[in-house]
Amino acid sequence: MKSYINVGMFGMGHVGTALFRLLKENRSLIDNRIGMPIRISKVVVSDLSKNRGVDVSGLNMGTDPDLILEDPEIDVVVELIGGVTLAESIIRRALDKGKSVVTANKALLAEKGAVIFPAAYRNQGYFGFEASVGAAIPIIRTFREGYAGDEILAFSAILNGTSNYILTHMTENGTEFDEALGQAREKGLAEADPTLDIEGIDAAHKLTILLNLAFGGRFDFSSLYMEGISKITAADISFTKQLGYRIKHLGIARKSEYGVEARVHPVLLPQQHILSSVNGSFNAVSLTCKYSGSSLLYGHGAGPDPSASGVAADLIEACRSIIAKQQPRTSPVNVPLKSWLPMEIVSMDELQSEYYLRFKVMDHPGVLASISKILADHSISIRSAIQPGTSAEGKMVDIVLMTHQALESQIQSALQAIQPLDFMAAESQLIRIGG
Amino acid sequence: MKSYINVGMFGMGHVGTALFRLLKENRSLIDNRIGMPIRISKVVVSDLSKNRGVDVSGLNMGTDPDLILEDPEIDVVVELIGGVTLAESIIRRALDKGKSVVTANKALLAEKGAVIFPAAYRNQGYFGFEASVGAAIPIIRTFREGYAGDEILAFSAILNGTSNYILTHMTENGTEFDEALGQAREKGLAEADPTLDIEGIDAAHKLTILLNLAFGGRFDFSSLYMEGISKITAADISFTKQLGYRIKHLGIARKSEYGVEARVHPVLLPQQHILSSVNGSFNAVSLTCKYSGSSLLYGHGAGPDPSASGVAADLIEACRSIIAKQQPRTSPVNVPLKSWLPMEIVSMDELQSEYYLRFKVMDHPGVLASISKILADHSISIRSAIQPGTSAEGKMVDIVLMTHQALESQIQSALQAIQPLDFMAAESQLIRIGG
Repeated sequence: MKSYINVGMFGMGHVGTALFRLLKENRSLIDNRIGMPIRISKVVVSDLSKNRGVDVSGLNMGTDPDLILEDPEIDVVVELIGGVTLAESIIRRALDKGKSVVTANKALLAEKGAVIFPAAYRNQGYFGFEASVGAAIPIIRTFREGYAGDEILAFSAILNGTSNYILTHMTENGTEFDEALGQAREKGLAEADPTLDIEGIDAAHKLTILLNLAFGGRFDFSSLYMEGISKITAADISFTKQLGYRIKHLGIARKSEYGVEARVHPVLLPQQHILSSVNGSFNAVSLTCKYSGSSLLYGHGAGPDPSASGVAADLIEACRSIIAKQQPRTSPVNVPLKSWLPMEIVSMDELQSEYYLRFKVMDHPGVLASISKILADHSISIRSAIQPGTSAEGKMVDIVLMTHQALESQIQSALQAIQPLDFMAAESQLIRIGG
Repeated sequence: MKSYINVGMFGMGHVGTALFRLLKENRSLIDNRIGMPIRISKVVVSDLSKNRGVDVSGLNMGTDPDLILEDPEIDVVVELIGGVTLAESIIRRALDKGKSVVTANKALLAEKGAVIFPAAYRNQGYFGFEASVGAAIPIIRTFREGYAGDEILAFSAILNGTSNYILTHMTENGTEFDEALGQAREKGLAEADPTLDIEGIDAAHKLTILLNLAFGGRFDFSSLYMEGISKITAADISFTKQLGYRIKHLGIARKSEYGVEARVHPVLLPQQHILSSVNGSFNAVSLTCKYSGSSLLYGHGAGPDPSASGVAADLIEACRSIIAKQQPRTSPVNVPLKSWLPMEIVSMDELQSEYYLRFKVMDHPGVLASISKILADHSISIRSAIQPGTSAEGKMVDIVLMTHQALESQIQSALQAIQPLDFMAAESQLIRIGG
């Protein structure tokens, strides 16, 4: 008879140390919930000398993955090192050894899902990845179990806390992107190299994971359209605010008559849209199901403590399975492996949307006429046009156009035709409208 | 080898017929998710002649519970008849026979939880009750599994769609309670006898179920303080709106230094509070956990289709267990039966809160002084006082006071001392402030 669950942890950075604290602090509560204590007995890290701010005495720490992977006493492997290559090898080896695995690694699951999920499916242990999307917000469980009997028709989600913090800061303070990014760095919300966050890659990783669960098919991360927030200016924020909108960075997925639409980019949302009031570093997923209608999950989508809470939920589910000597009853991707088939994402060219367009031009008579003519030639009709006032430079002005529903391919070719015109003073701006 | 899951359903009202439609419409999706079809093969109803608007040919329908309960081929019993006595007997018999059980019956679980949950715990089948609180909003799963590793410190929830619809209607249209109730009836959101909804009983049922899961103890429904919305007037809505608040009907639970606070009553929430923007018949649960911080779940908390979606999620979990030949790995109450012990709710007398008080008085000099004196004698200090203007009746006016933090017992005894004063023209109004 086992007397405790034996956990081996890879990585002891911010999330790892928070998990270590959580398991210590919530020990009696967790013991009570699962009927057996959880013990992190071994930890593998890259640098043993680093001070982690927690008491690690009594922990068996090392740098060799075999310390955990070759130990038959380890029941659950928790992978918190991030990155793709080493994490993939650790997880695949752990699965091969029949261990349960818990990971928060969105990049790995998005980019290598096609090999990791099948390996997890064939494994006899539990495979948990709740913290890979939205930290402790129970999105994975909700998609896989909460709406198991329902058809998910569409969802829109704020998936990257850094981008949302930056956009909120720009909206509330009227600052430019760079200053808001600086603020995010000061708050510990942006990495030294913020590319993954601000260019939409992290959000696209998370969207890929959710697509797998929502639509029961295998989605290719690299075929996802993604655009970040680094080109959003204070002018865009200000103009759209005047027009009653908020700019949010969203992952969007929708079943349409053409297949599954899925994309990551900034969006103009009406101010009263529920996602418009999700501010700061919060994440949220708004979804529409055939039977349950509209719903929303909202919470901290990042940070050591919320991530540790998400990892702990999986760890407890793993323990409950181990104690009951059960094999997993739910496929990690929500459908049996044999029906987890590649699913196409509808090409961006076929997207129908309304658009916000901003042109920085040298002001002279006929500019609006020239732009309007090219748009009309591409079957794009204008809903409203504003010229918010002369800029400080003197003759450069912004022209802001809101279009009716148009085809993405038409908009893109119209912009290509407009860009070389001699009155154009900068790259044009395009932001899609609607959640 | 089983070739399908055999379901017996009790009750075929609005939720039952929606479930029947859902299982038909989502058949291929559900087959794919669980690897086996679900078939509702028998239905027990009280009136066989009723037209249910769905094609019931091929269904084995009857009025005798034994039709389902004595059939060893039935794997899962779905109880959708509501009410306490008959439902209790059906569920206990189904559990005794080793069948999995899915129910949406909040009254039963709140009032008879002390017998139903232990019976479910000892049973070898799955016991699901997701739709008993918040319909398809996955609150039960989130409390039991999503935050399994975390400590739930507090939650506030809009648990009754009818009350929320009425309050929203009053807020948006300035109507009195009775007119808003009439609107709710027209929309099919209020029963002929609306007592359960508008007097807070339904919300208290749901709160009791959530308390069990959140705090891992056995809570007594009858010891819960509950107050409905039937005494809220258009004047209260209007005054509180001017002061920057919204009136919401909430279930509130909080771990405090004295134990667990739990209560159901109207609350003044600051307009920018996240629950203030939950309108119409929507439900929402806002919770605070030690590690994951603040989060929110939001969605349709009632209605045939959302309820059917919640029931279907449980049905699928039951099927996944049956197919994997597994016993449940999670206790229905989140902790093993031996540690599911009675837990006390802190007496309302000890509540510390800020208060909105409205006195309808015959206006003459010294009224405010008299009221203030009595409040001061009870150690209650006033944060602000307004007298919004002479009422249409001529000499009757409203005096609205907002207090600083005070003790509930003191407020109640102050109101008892004020009520008999000769200038008092009606019952005084008390609404607690804060989420």
